[in-house]
Amino acid sequence: MVTIVLAEIVTIGDELTRGEIVDTNSAYLAGQLWDRDITVRWMTSCRDDVDDMRAALTAATARADLVICSGGLGPTEDDLTVDVLAGLVGVEPVIDEVARDRMAARFALGGIAVTPIQLRQVRVPSGSRVHINNGGLAPCFEVALGGVPVICLPGVPREIFAIMDGGLGARLGELRLARGNAPAIARRIYRVFGRGESQISQACRGLIDDITGASIHYQVKFPETLVKIVVKDADRAIADERLATIDVGLRARLGEHLYGTGEDALPQVAARRFAAAGVTLATAESCTGGLLGSLITAVAGSSRYYRGGAIVYANEEKVRQLGIDPELLTAFGAVSEETARAMASCARERFGVDLAVAITGIAGPDGGTPDKPVGTVWLAVASADGVTSKRINFPGARDMVRTLAAWWGLRMLMDGVPGGA
Amino acid sequence: MVTIVLAEIVTIGDELTRGEIVDTNSAYLAGQLWDRDITVRWMTSCRDDVDDMRAALTAATARADLVICSGGLGPTEDDLTVDVLAGLVGVEPVIDEVARDRMAARFALGGIAVTPIQLRQVRVPSGSRVHINNGGLAPCFEVALGGVPVICLPGVPREIFAIMDGGLGARLGELRLARGNAPAIARRIYRVFGRGESQISQACRGLIDDITGASIHYQVKFPETLVKIVVKDADRAIADERLATIDVGLRARLGEHLYGTGEDALPQVAARRFAAAGVTLATAESCTGGLLGSLITAVAGSSRYYRGGAIVYANEEKVRQLGIDPELLTAFGAVSEETARAMASCARERFGVDLAVAITGIAGPDGGTPDKPVGTVWLAVASADGVTSKRINFPGARDMVRTLAAWWGLRMLMDGVPGGA
Repeated sequence: MVTIVLAEIVTIGDELTRGEIVDTNSAYLAGQLWDRDITVRWMTSCRDDVDDMRAALTAATARADLVICSGGLGPTEDDLTVDVLAGLVGVEPVIDEVARDRMAARFALGGIAVTPIQLRQVRVPSGSRVHINNGGLAPCFEVALGGVPVICLPGVPREIFAIMDGGLGARLGELRLARGNAPAIARRIYRVFGRGESQISQACRGLIDDITGASIHYQVKFPETLVKIVVKDADRAIADERLATIDVGLRARLGEHLYGTGEDALPQVAARRFAAAGVTLATAESCTGGLLGSLITAVAGSSRYYRGGAIVYANEEKVRQLGIDPELLTAFGAVSEETARAMASCARERFGVDLAVAITGIAGPDGGTPDKPVGTVWLAVASADGVTSKRINFPGARDMVRTLAAWWGLRMLMDGVPGGA
Repeated sequence: MVTIVLAEIVTIGDELTRGEIVDTNSAYLAGQLWDRDITVRWMTSCRDDVDDMRAALTAATARADLVICSGGLGPTEDDLTVDVLAGLVGVEPVIDEVARDRMAARFALGGIAVTPIQLRQVRVPSGSRVHINNGGLAPCFEVALGGVPVICLPGVPREIFAIMDGGLGARLGELRLARGNAPAIARRIYRVFGRGESQISQACRGLIDDITGASIHYQVKFPETLVKIVVKDADRAIADERLATIDVGLRARLGEHLYGTGEDALPQVAARRFAAAGVTLATAESCTGGLLGSLITAVAGSSRYYRGGAIVYANEEKVRQLGIDPELLTAFGAVSEETARAMASCARERFGVDLAVAITGIAGPDGGTPDKPVGTVWLAVASADGVTSKRINFPGARDMVRTLAAWWGLRMLMDGVPGGA
């Protein structure tokens, strides 16, 4: 028998209801709860208004087993969450001494005194359980309202992450366990690049049909897709074993398009492979205009393997920077297999690196022809073993074509690492 | 006297409550409503569950003057919105003939027959007012529930935009007018780069204090900040006049940091200036690794002015690609005013362009020194008039430093255009 624990997420702020910011916190919190076998049933957003906040929290505690609330914990008069919760619980707001001391210590570094307005930020309803906020000043607090735990977080995403990592995650697990009949959960996130969501779900059809307690979810994080497998069972070993069975099947079905598991996206996975192999890299980009270089250097430590790149947007620059034969450009055109291969070879030689990648294509919206429509991209990687090349026809608008092309370039570079593919 | 019209937004889908996707639709819809003098009081998300959907819609119509609902209009058995609304109104779902004909015509192009499953998607509650969906197959429909208009949209953002542009926007205006006492609204969005939200709000303090019906909102769209001015008055001419007064004050207070108004961000604004001036450009990037080139080439038509760039991540590449004097690098270091200026000058000469920009800095998390902490970035622009340079110390993590540096590079390039700054 499984107990379903229902949660409600309440987010507070005029900036939400006016549409000035997108509520990313609710999705983050929902994912964290889902991962801990807590089902979010409702998500509610309201204005910075005492009556509406009271109504939202009262309704939430009436229909959920757990309420997570975000926003309204700042120092201004608009920040009302502490007062509203204290009022609902029937206690007074008090200064949290630990949070006040942390604030004072931090302010002292900058030679700033703590003002009464700032102190508003370290108040909590009297009797709260406090969860540390390593990402900011306002403490996270937990109260019980009609027997239902209500956990209040600030609205700044980075502070929420810090609080979750700093102990709230464990607390959520504890609250779930306390409700009884908590299953063991085995889960893994698989990262797929090079196939769309519909192709991936097609490939995975039937994968978990005969496996009790298993579920599969797809999450598009353009340009990649995450496949999440969750197996629940009362017995931890059984859940793990079933996940291992699915793992084998999933890898067979997704093949090389499955590039990793867990939190690290392609740039991080590729970075580890480059660093481990001790290779040096260069880029030669036309239609992506530096996007691939930017992707590679987004990862800290990239100077260990990345030497640099040539952005050869104009044809004259392909000749000047890389030494491409102008006659080759004339004969085959800038967007051609021949040009891509020459760009990669020349870049490898000029930069003196182990691996060089080249990208040339038509990002659109103009410049397409019947032969080479918008979205046509040629990629090539040159290594000591020679040159590999690939033509891809990307769907979508300019930014999608460019992003896909840069990611494919990174993928090919990764596969070009000795022992890599 | 002003009438406040209150709205509720209801978004539906398991993928929302499991945290698999971020609900961007609610923010978009809230902004559209706000712009039409309709105040969103509540935003609610629930699962694909008949009872929860019924509860959400019943609660919404009890506390709002207008309800906008998104999601659950697809062809699958999980898509329940039509049935739930029909049930609540007390009518039957019927096929919308216009939507069916559009579907049939579109499918015929691909030689595909319309199946009963697909037909689910073109149903609406009998008696609905239908709003055309130029972005997809499912029609948008409007019913009255307890006298409150409920407008149901699909969940795909691009379809929502198409429906809003295709007539729903006008319908919202009509619904607002019908409630009476609708003010004329004058509004403008100002785009600011180079100052943080707190500095901007400080600069704007008191700006609208004496101006009746005016409000000011700030929206951070990193790395820029939008300042939205709204003036409401029964008289259109008075609202416009008051906005014009604020406009003058705002421009004086924000100075050069205000770079544009309306929907176009810095890359688009800069692109227009580059194209109009007929200049040619090149980039020389170290810590940003191609990000600025990528930003420039993100705008269609950039080949008219952008020739290319050098990504000189390794010091050897600064020498090889640009011809920087190795002794200068040794003497001043890669992150120095001298190096940035030399990079810009050399790039201008080698690429043979009117304007070249150079960026060199310490993006972190490693590589900082007491003298040059993480976030230290030197930028330079070389033109026929000489070289200008600027040191900036950016706060924040690696990706923030890189994004700010690339945007500053673009901003300096724009200011370097003759007659530009």
